[in-house]
Amino acid sequence: MRASKLFIHTLREIPSEAELISHRLMLRAGLIRQLAAGIFSWLPLGWRVVSKITDIVREEMNAAGAAEVMMPAVQPAEIWHESGRWQVYGPELLRLQDRHQRDYCIGPTHEEVVTSLVSASVTSWRQLPFNLYQIQTKFRDERRPRYGVMRSREFVMKDAYSFDGDAEGALLSYQQMRDAYIRIFDRIGLSYRIVAADSGAIGGNRSEEFLVLADNGEATIALTDAGYTANLDQIPCTREKPRRPKPGKQMETLATPGITTIEQLQNFLPKQLPAQRCIKTMIITGEAGIAAAILAGDASLSLAKASAQPEIGGGARFAEPDEAIKAIGANFGSLGPVNMPLPVIADYSVENAADFACGANREGEHLLNVNFGRDLPEPRFTDLRLARAGELAPDGNPLKLSQGIEVGHIFYLGTKYSQALQATFENEQQATLPIEMGCYGIGVTRIAAAAIEQNHDEAGIIFPAAIAPFTAVVLPLGTDPEVFATALKLYESLTKAGIDVLLDDRSLRAGTAFADLDLLGIPHRIVISTRNLTNKKIAYKARTSDKELLLELGNAHDELSALIRAN
Amino acid sequence: MRASKLFIHTLREIPSEAELISHRLMLRAGLIRQLAAGIFSWLPLGWRVVSKITDIVREEMNAAGAAEVMMPAVQPAEIWHESGRWQVYGPELLRLQDRHQRDYCIGPTHEEVVTSLVSASVTSWRQLPFNLYQIQTKFRDERRPRYGVMRSREFVMKDAYSFDGDAEGALLSYQQMRDAYIRIFDRIGLSYRIVAADSGAIGGNRSEEFLVLADNGEATIALTDAGYTANLDQIPCTREKPRRPKPGKQMETLATPGITTIEQLQNFLPKQLPAQRCIKTMIITGEAGIAAAILAGDASLSLAKASAQPEIGGGARFAEPDEAIKAIGANFGSLGPVNMPLPVIADYSVENAADFACGANREGEHLLNVNFGRDLPEPRFTDLRLARAGELAPDGNPLKLSQGIEVGHIFYLGTKYSQALQATFENEQQATLPIEMGCYGIGVTRIAAAAIEQNHDEAGIIFPAAIAPFTAVVLPLGTDPEVFATALKLYESLTKAGIDVLLDDRSLRAGTAFADLDLLGIPHRIVISTRNLTNKKIAYKARTSDKELLLELGNAHDELSALIRAN
Repeated sequence: MRASKLFIHTLREIPSEAELISHRLMLRAGLIRQLAAGIFSWLPLGWRVVSKITDIVREEMNAAGAAEVMMPAVQPAEIWHESGRWQVYGPELLRLQDRHQRDYCIGPTHEEVVTSLVSASVTSWRQLPFNLYQIQTKFRDERRPRYGVMRSREFVMKDAYSFDGDAEGALLSYQQMRDAYIRIFDRIGLSYRIVAADSGAIGGNRSEEFLVLADNGEATIALTDAGYTANLDQIPCTREKPRRPKPGKQMETLATPGITTIEQLQNFLPKQLPAQRCIKTMIITGEAGIAAAILAGDASLSLAKASAQPEIGGGARFAEPDEAIKAIGANFGSLGPVNMPLPVIADYSVENAADFACGANREGEHLLNVNFGRDLPEPRFTDLRLARAGELAPDGNPLKLSQGIEVGHIFYLGTKYSQALQATFENEQQATLPIEMGCYGIGVTRIAAAAIEQNHDEAGIIFPAAIAPFTAVVLPLGTDPEVFATALKLYESLTKAGIDVLLDDRSLRAGTAFADLDLLGIPHRIVISTRNLTNKKIAYKARTSDKELLLELGNAHDELSALIRAN
Repeated sequence: MRASKLFIHTLREIPSEAELISHRLMLRAGLIRQLAAGIFSWLPLGWRVVSKITDIVREEMNAAGAAEVMMPAVQPAEIWHESGRWQVYGPELLRLQDRHQRDYCIGPTHEEVVTSLVSASVTSWRQLPFNLYQIQTKFRDERRPRYGVMRSREFVMKDAYSFDGDAEGALLSYQQMRDAYIRIFDRIGLSYRIVAADSGAIGGNRSEEFLVLADNGEATIALTDAGYTANLDQIPCTREKPRRPKPGKQMETLATPGITTIEQLQNFLPKQLPAQRCIKTMIITGEAGIAAAILAGDASLSLAKASAQPEIGGGARFAEPDEAIKAIGANFGSLGPVNMPLPVIADYSVENAADFACGANREGEHLLNVNFGRDLPEPRFTDLRLARAGELAPDGNPLKLSQGIEVGHIFYLGTKYSQALQATFENEQQATLPIEMGCYGIGVTRIAAAAIEQNHDEAGIIFPAAIAPFTAVVLPLGTDPEVFATALKLYESLTKAGIDVLLDDRSLRAGTAFADLDLLGIPHRIVISTRNLTNKKIAYKARTSDKELLLELGNAHDELSALIRAN
C-alpha cells in the first residue's frame, strides 16, 4: 500500500495529556486519536496492528475448535437481572434506555447473552461440548479512563465461552484454551507470564492471567528464583503469633485538620507510632454487600482477597464516595472502625495492634489509644493484604515482584451462569444438569499498547514483526524518476512474494521520513537513493539495528526476502 | 470445519413472528437468534456469511485505495451539536449518558466523527485526496424493528468517506467508489440495479442507490422498457392544467365516528367523492421544520420530495404522534388543512380540487365542501407524491415498477459537513477552502438477508457461492468407519485445495441431514454411504439441481474440484 493514502499524521511534540509511554507513542505515531475521554479512533496504521492481532487470535481460536459468533453490543437488562449482575456490576456498566424507555446496557462482557442463547438451544449431552467466541467492540464506563487504549472505555476484546457436560470436560476445554493462548501470545511475539489469578467479578474456581512483562504494567507478578509464578493477589499472607499487648490509656479524640493519609498522620502524631498501630480503613463493595476493611497503615489491600469475604463477595471494588456515604449513613472525613455501621473485616496485620490510631468517622478528627474488644467489638481477622517482596512464597522461597499488563484471562466458571439462566441439558442417564462453563478473554486493542510498552526506544515504537502495521517499507528519496521506478519495482516484487510492504511515496525529506518510520516501528527499512543507485546499490536497515547495509541491486529482492523472513 | 462444533440448531417449525421469507429462513436455518426487538446474535454459520461479505467488501475497498480505520461506536453529543444533527436526527438516534451525566449517542453513522478527525489533522492540499472506511456495528433505534436483520436496530455497515480538494476530485472519488461497489456486488453474486436516489438525511447533490431485486423489497424502482432506471422518488410528477371549479355550498362539519382512513371516509360519505376531492393530511418533520402536507386521497407521499421543501428540509419523516400533537398544539383525530397552525404544502394532485372533504382536526369529525382561498388560505402547490406505474418517465416511456432492497448508497456530499465542522485546507494558492466530501455505505448484514430474499426455494436458502457459509459439504452416512474415513480424506483434500468445506459429522439420519443442508443453502453436497462405497462411488448434488450424480471415488477429488470451481 502507498503511504500517501494511509492518513499518516505523526506528531513531533509529545502529547501532554499522555502519562504512559505507549499512549504517548501511539498518539505521536498517529495510530490513534482521542474523540472523548477514553474513546479513541483507530487510524489506518493503528487499525492494521489491531487487525494483525485479530487475525492471529481468530486463526488459533478456529484451530482450537472454537466457532466464531457475533452477539449484540446492546443487551436488554432482563438477562442481567436474571444473573443478578444488573444490581452488582456498578457504574462501569453503561446503562441506557431506548425510545420506549426499556432498559439496556452496552455489554462489557457476554456471559448473560451467550448463556441465554445456549439455554434456548441445547437440550442434550449429544450437543456438547462446544466453544463460541467473538471479536467485538465492548464498553466499560471507567471512572477515570486514562493510559490511552490500555484502559479505554471502548475497546476490542475476544471473548470465548465453553460449554461442557461435566467438570472434567470443562477443565479439558480450559486446557485447550490455555494452549491456544500460549500459541497466540507466542506468535504475537511478546514476553509474557501465565499466573494463577483470582476470578474477580466473574466467579468460578480456576483462573489464570496472561501478563505481558512491562515496567509500567498495573498488575504485579509474584515470582521466586525457583520458578514459582502467580498474581500477587494469590500469595497468602500468614498470620503472626498472637502477642497483642494489654490496652493502655483511655481512647481519646485528636483534632487532625487536613490529615487524610497514614503518612500525614504518622508525621502529625506527637509520638511516632509504627504502621501496625496506624490503622487504615477502606469501604469495599461487592456482589454480596458492603463492608469496612482495616489494615496496617503500610499494608495494601488485595481486592481479590476482599472478594473472597462473605460480607463482600465477588467483584470487590473500592466504594465510590457517594456509595460509601450512603452506606455509612453520614458524611465522613477520616474513616475508622469505631462506631462503624458496616461489618468490619480486619487483616491479620492488625491482629496484634493495641493502643492504635485510626480515623474518627468525622472530618478532621482521629482517635488515639483505640483497642479491639474495649473500644470496638473484636472483628473477624483474615488475610486481606498483598504480600511484599522478600516475604516467603508458597514454595518457601523469597518473593520477587515484577510488573505486567493483563492481556488475557481464562476462567473455569462452573455452573454459576448456567444455573442462573437455566442452561441445562439431559445427560446419558436422562438426568437434567446445569452445563459446565468456562470463559476466556483477550484484550485485543490492549495488546497493541502492551506491545509498545514492552518494545520501544527513544526514537519510537519497535513492533514485533507479526503485528507491525507493515513488515517492511520501501522509501524512494528525492525526485529522480529512476529512483521511484526502482522503488516501485522492489515494492511490487516483495509484495508479490507475500511480504506486507509499505511504499513510502510521501516525498518527505530523508531525515523526516527516517524519523517517521522509526517512530512507527516498521521492522525493515529499504531506502532507494540516486547516490546509491549509481553504484547499483540499495540501503537496508533493521529497526532494531543502527547499522545500514548496502545491498547489490541485482539480488536485492532475494537478500531482502531472506533478511525479512529471518526476523 | 466440523459441523458438530458449529452450534447448528435448525428449526423444523416456521417461526410465527417472522413475516419476511429471509427472516423466517434465517431463524429456521439457525443463522441468527433474536435477543431483543431488532437485536440479533449471529450464530457461527450466519457469521460466516457476514464474514465472507466483509472480506469481499474489504478487498475491493483496499483495491480502490481506501484505508481502513475504526471510529468509536459511542460518540459525544458535542460533534452532533456542531453538525446540527443532535436536534434533527429524531428518536432513531440512541442517546445515552455516561456515569458523569455527559451526553453521547451510539453512532448510526460517522460523518461527524470522521470530519472532526480530518479537521484536526489536514491542513494542506498536499494531504488530499484520501478515503477512509470502516466495517462496524451500528445502532439505529427503529420505532418498529422487524423483518429480522433486514431492518434491525443493531447492524453491521461499511461506511466510507472521501476527502478531496475540489468538486471535480470529489466526483472522481465518487466514481471510484461506484466502480468498487459494482465489483463488490458482482462478486457477491446478486442481481441488482443502480438507481438515482435522493440524498435523504445526509444532504448533498449526487447520490445513487444499489438495490437488490426482490419481490419483498421495500424500495420501489422505476424502470422503462427503454432502459431508464431510478428510485421512484426521483420521478417528477407533472402539474395538471389549472381547471379548478368554483366553490359550491358552504363548508360544513360531518360527524365521522371511527373514520380514520380515506377509504373509510369515501364509503361513509352520502355521495361518493373522487379521491382527488378526499384530501389527506400528513405531518412531516425534517431538518428545517415541521409542516402539513396535503395530497389526493389515492396519492402516496414521497418523503424524498418532502425533504426538498424549504419548510421541511432534509431527512423528512412522518412526525411521531407526540411530535405532531406538540406542534399542532392540541390533540387531534382526523387531520386537515383548515385552521392548521403549521405551514400547509399541497401536492399538485389537489390543485384542481374544489368542494373537497378533509379531516377537521377534531376526533371523529370531517369537513365537507372545503375550498382553497375561501375556507383556508391558498397553499403553495408543488410535487410531493410518488409516480404510479403507467405514468410517463423522464425518458417519455411509461413507467414500470419493481421492488428492491437497498444494500448500498453512495453520496457526493459537497462541503456540508466540512463547513459545519471546520474541515478546511489551504490550496496551492494559499486560499483556505472547505474539503469536498463524499460518503458511501454498504449494509453488510442486510446483504445476507437480501441474498436470501432473492435466492430461495421451498426447501430453504440457495446461497450464492461467494457468500455461502461453506462452499461444499461432505456428509458421511451411517456408522461404517470406512465411510467416515473416506469422507474425512475427501474433506481434507478439498480443504487443502483451498475449497471451503464443511464436514457434517453430526451422525444425523440421511433425511434429516439432507433437509438441514438444503435449508442452509450450501451450494455443493457430497454424500458418502456404504452402498455407494461398495461400488467405489460417491454422490454429488448441487443445491440448485434435483439430480444426484454418482462419481467414481478414484477421481472424485478432481471432478469435485472442477464442479465446485465452475460454480
